[in-house]
Order: sequence, then structure tokens, then C-alpha cells
Amino acid sequence: MSGSLPSSAFTDRLARARKVAAERGVDALLITPGADLRYLVGYQAMPLERLTCLVLPAGADPVLVVPLLERPAALASPAAELGLEIRAWDETDDPFALVAGLLGPGSGPRLAVANRMWAEQVLRFSAAIPGADISLAGAVLHDLRLHKSAEEVEALFRAGAAIDAVHARMGEWLRPGRTEAAVGRDIADAMVAAGHEVASFTIVASGPNGASPHHHLSDRVIQSGDPVVVDIGGAMPDGYCSDCTRTYLAGGEPTDEFAAYYEVLRQAQQASVAAVRPGVPAERVDAAAREPIAAAGYGAYFVHRTGHGIGLEEHEDPYIVAGNTEPLAPGMAFSIEPGIYLPGRHGARIEDIVVCTETGVRPLNLAPHELVRL
Amino acid sequence: MSGSLPSSAFTDRLARARKVAAERGVDALLITPGADLRYLVGYQAMPLERLTCLVLPAGADPVLVVPLLERPAALASPAAELGLEIRAWDETDDPFALVAGLLGPGSGPRLAVANRMWAEQVLRFSAAIPGADISLAGAVLHDLRLHKSAEEVEALFRAGAAIDAVHARMGEWLRPGRTEAAVGRDIADAMVAAGHEVASFTIVASGPNGASPHHHLSDRVIQSGDPVVVDIGGAMPDGYCSDCTRTYLAGGEPTDEFAAYYEVLRQAQQASVAAVRPGVPAERVDAAAREPIAAAGYGAYFVHRTGHGIGLEEHEDPYIVAGNTEPLAPGMAFSIEPGIYLPGRHGARIEDIVVCTETGVRPLNLAPHELVRL
Repeated sequence: MSGSLPSSAFTDRLARARKVAAERGVDALLITPGADLRYLVGYQAMPLERLTCLVLPAGADPVLVVPLLERPAALASPAAELGLEIRAWDETDDPFALVAGLLGPGSGPRLAVANRMWAEQVLRFSAAIPGADISLAGAVLHDLRLHKSAEEVEALFRAGAAIDAVHARMGEWLRPGRTEAAVGRDIADAMVAAGHEVASFTIVASGPNGASPHHHLSDRVIQSGDPVVVDIGGAMPDGYCSDCTRTYLAGGEPTDEFAAYYEVLRQAQQASVAAVRPGVPAERVDAAAREPIAAAGYGAYFVHRTGHGIGLEEHEDPYIVAGNTEPLAPGMAFSIEPGIYLPGRHGARIEDIVVCTETGVRPLNLAPHELVRL
Repeated sequence: MSGSLPSSAFTDRLARARKVAAERGVDALLITPGADLRYLVGYQAMPLERLTCLVLPAGADPVLVVPLLERPAALASPAAELGLEIRAWDETDDPFALVAGLLGPGSGPRLAVANRMWAEQVLRFSAAIPGADISLAGAVLHDLRLHKSAEEVEALFRAGAAIDAVHARMGEWLRPGRTEAAVGRDIADAMVAAGHEVASFTIVASGPNGASPHHHLSDRVIQSGDPVVVDIGGAMPDGYCSDCTRTYLAGGEPTDEFAAYYEVLRQAQQASVAAVRPGVPAERVDAAAREPIAAAGYGAYFVHRTGHGIGLEEHEDPYIVAGNTEPLAPGMAFSIEPGIYLPGRHGARIEDIVVCTETGVRPLNLAPHELVRL
């Protein structure tokens, strides 16, 4: 299990990004730290106030501009293997002028900046490059990142296996008498032990807290008979993310009401997964989860979209939500995570990451979907 | 020790921000998640793809726009106590159009966006608000955040005391035979035990790793006689940050060479702290650290600026660096952290957070500066 993709993967991505940029009339991409930078050159740069920026002209060689202090980190990253120039700037240099110089004297360049570049950087580039016409690099990178390669799907599968291994151990930690926070700490340690580089989030929502979809952790002591929603995920050393939710019963027997709506949810999640295949609009997968929940009378209690894309970011395109008519295509990876939340009482959610294949769907989380009684 | 400031502090900040905005001809501030949002309303919002934005018109009441799913988090934050409207948008609403509606039909509004707003949000606001003239909110908020109130200085002092308490325990963890990574885990746990909400960074740079200013952790086993640079910091529950570096000797005696340059460094750090008083340009404090190091022949081995401001961010204005002629003023808080780094061999750094007072300087870290032999 490697910590990073082969250099050829990044070389291929850079070439494809330049090709799409040229097709779209973009003169250069300016990519600051974040998932786009990691996607293109494998460098997980710190988001510092000092500018780091990959300059990727459509018609010239790329240059990675880094603060002098960060040069060792850049050289230790996969970017160093790609044969691209790494240009360091010192504490009193102006890195925006440096980038402007790299772009040459041509007037009015059409620049595409990373979607999550900071406003202060956008405006400084605007000032340093007269006549610059600024758009979003997402228009160039969206299709590339949206369609995962076979290598990326395997990376997501490894992430899925790592988080499944943590769910499989839940009985070691989740029991009545312990606080959500204490259980959460054990889970976070186990995520790292299972191969994650970082535990990104740990939701342990017990009893009434389970009725709040975005509850994280609290000092609430778990009670016997509580339904507990456990939604956890992290990033692997190669940057690809995991995200998986299971609902547990902390001792005792479920009430008839809970058992009934949990079964509705389980079937809805299964129906939604089964709806995934090439050509199906993303919103249809949302509807496939929503319709059986509504038919059982719980429609008002499923208060969020069905899912989100996943890759180098926990949340990215495609979003599985009403209104998103984008047809699914092979290589798209996303969560399917319907939930039912009874305010002030309890709730349940079941979440798998799945990938759209040439013919249907491949789930990347394989833990059982039945209510697990601990 | 409270986890948050009183509501009156936020009410005062909002009023001052609106006043400065009006003075500068800004029609409205648009503040997305980050330190600016936390500064103004105390809400530590997650940086999600779903838009959260404080809309603060110069001439009307502020509105906090949040995704429906995040409304409970917003209501649980200090923002709920401020009497401002919290407007939630649902999964299929367009939050940019919602904000445009809040700004009213006036043409060509002058909008100041958070310095770290994402480019994709900047461009969507641009598209949703015809004729918008977009500048940076930093121009409005810079002076407010730069000059810490007495309450903020006390919050930074509490953060300093918490990190000092961790340094005081270093002998429990830092010893030959352990890896930097293992020591780092113990330090991170101790930061949380000492009152931090999160351990933001943990640098344990032993032996030759100490010669790299931005080394973090590695699997290197600490050797007897290694100098070890330990640079650690985190954020307290109120959001204010700590940051303190001490250099330790892991057993044995220092070499004459190391002892000599450590003493040069200690005196340089002390001289730099002593140079702080109102009216002194920031770069003069940098020079006060740099001159004695250069005079002793180590000028080429002090490869970074002397310091950075600190508050709700680990790094913010003022930067203590050549070229920054901004005069220091009471309430400015920043690090003073010269270092000497002998490539491939070892290094040392000493860092305190200090505050400029009406008459001079108040250090917020009180751990001794002498080389600590463990």
C-alpha cells in the first residue's frame, strides 16, 4: 500500500489540465495550496500567508513558486519527481510580481485561479498582472477530478477498507456509561492505527443528539438503549478520503418505532445505491432514497441531500441533490447517506461511498447495513 | 476562565467595523468562515462548500446567512446572543441570490469581502450582484484586529500560560531513544490537557532536523546529546492562540560550539524583546535580533523573519520583518523567534509571544530562556 501515486499519474494530469486549459482559451492556471494542487503535483502544501502557487501556462513549462522556507517540503513531495522548476522566493521578495514575470509581457492574460484561492491573493494577482481576466480553474479541472482513474478508485477503496476496519471494532469503545467525547477519541486513534494520516471528523451522536445531522461530539453519557449515529472519516497518506456512517444500538432492544424507521432507512439507502449507473442524473439517486422514506411518512425528517462526491476532498462534486441533473458517469465517486431524524428524540443514518462503474455501481464500504446491537 | 468573550465585546466590534466601513465608503462587509467571522460574532463556522456569510451593511442591520443544517451550530455560538438575524437557506436555495436580496436594489454596491473568502465565492457574488465593486474587508478590519483589547491580551496571556505549562513538563516525554513522533503525540495530548481546544502544530526537531526551521515530526530516534527544537502551539476554546519555542538538550553536555551560538541566540532574542515599544517600526525589532547574530558570524544561518502577529490566527499582522515600517502600538501582539540553523548538523530557536504596551513590552511566555538539559 503506497503512500502516493506514481509520478506518471501526475505527469498525465498536468498534461490533461494544460490541454483542457488551451481548449478553453485559458492562458495559465494559478493553483494555490489545496486539493487542486495536490491533484496536479502531489504536493500537500500548508495554507500559509506566504504564497505557494503552481503556475501552469497552457503553452510553457510549469513552475512551482514556493516560499524559501517551504522549499524543503516541496522537494520532499512528489512534485520534485516531475521535472518541474521549483522557484523559491525570499522573505522580502514580492511573489506576485514573480508570478507576473513568469507569465511574460503579453497583455490581458486569461488566468484561471484555484476555486479556493483566497480573495486577497486573487486581488493581488489582479493588481500585479494588468488586464488579467480571471476565471475559476474549476472549469478546467472539474471534469478531470470528477472522473476518478482506476488508480484513484483503488485509493478510495483502500480508504474505505480502513474506515470499515474501524467500524468493525466499534464494540470495543461504544457502550453505555461512556461519553460521546471519550468514544470519539478512541475512534480517532483507531482511524490513524487503521492507516489514515489524519482523522478528519468523528461524529458520535447518541440518543437525542442523533436527531441533529451535524452534531459532532459532546460530554453526554451514552445511555443503555440509545441509538447512536457514528459518522467518521479521514484522509489517507495519499490524500484520498474515507467517510462512512453506521447506526448502533448501545445495549438493550430497539423500540418498535425505531426498528420500523431504521428498516425504512436501510431499504431507502439500498434503493439509492441500486439506482446508480451511467447516464442516470445525480438527482435521480437522491429521489431514489427520498421516495421510500416519504412513502413511509418520514419525508419531513430526511432534512439533507443524499450525498456528496469524495476524492482528495471530503466534499466535492458530484452532489447527490435535487436540481443536480448532471448524468452520472464511470469513475464518479460519492456518498449515499440518507437519514431520518426525529427532533429531540433520536435519529439514524446509513452511509456508504460508492463508485459509478461502466455498468452500475461498486460500493467501497462493505460493513453490514443492519442495526448493530452492541 | 471563560470559553468565550462577553457579548458586549462582539457588539462593540460590530459597531466599530460598521463605523470604519462607512468611513471608507464600503456599503457592506461580506464575511465568510474564518478568523474575521469569529472576531466579529464569535461563530467558529466550519469552512464548508455550503455558504455561510455574515452580511454587515454599513447602514442596516447585520444578517448571518447559514445553511439550514448549520443553523443549530450558529444558534449554539455567541452569535445567537447578539440579536442579529440568522437566516437559513435550504439545500436547493441559491444563497448568493439571497445575499444579493439582502443588499437591496441599489446599483454598484461597494463590497468588502473577507480576505480569505474563496475565489469561487468572490466570483459568484460578483455575478449575483451586478456592478459590485469588490475590495478586501482587511482594509476595514485590519486596524481593529491588529490592536488587541485588554480582554484579548488576557485571552492571549491565558493561552501563553497553557503552553508554558506544557513546556514545563517536557522532561516527562523528551528523552533519548524515543522518536520525535512519539514525543509529539504526548505533547499534543498535554496541550489539550492544559486547556487548548486543539493542538495546532507540534514541531519536535532533533539533531540535524533542528537545522530545518519548518521540520515538524519524523520517526527519527532522539540521540543522547541532541539539541531539540520544540515549537508548539494551539487554540484555546475562545479561539486565541499560543505559540512558544524552546530548545532542549536531550541528555549529555552541549558542545562548545552549540553552547556558544545558543548564548548568542538567547541574547539576540532578549535584545529583540527589549526593542519593543510604541512608535518603533516593526522592522527595527527584526534588526535588533538580527544584528547581534550577524555580529557573532551567524547572520547567514538566521534564515527567516523574526516574528509574526498572533490572535485568532496563529499568523497575522504585524509581521516582524525587514521592510515592515509599521510603527508598533499598544495592543499589538506578536512572536519574537530568532533562530540559528547549521544545515545538516543542528539548530536552535527561542520564541516568546509579547504584547506592545503603553510604555514598552509585556512577554506572555514566562518559561526560562536558558538551554534546558533533560
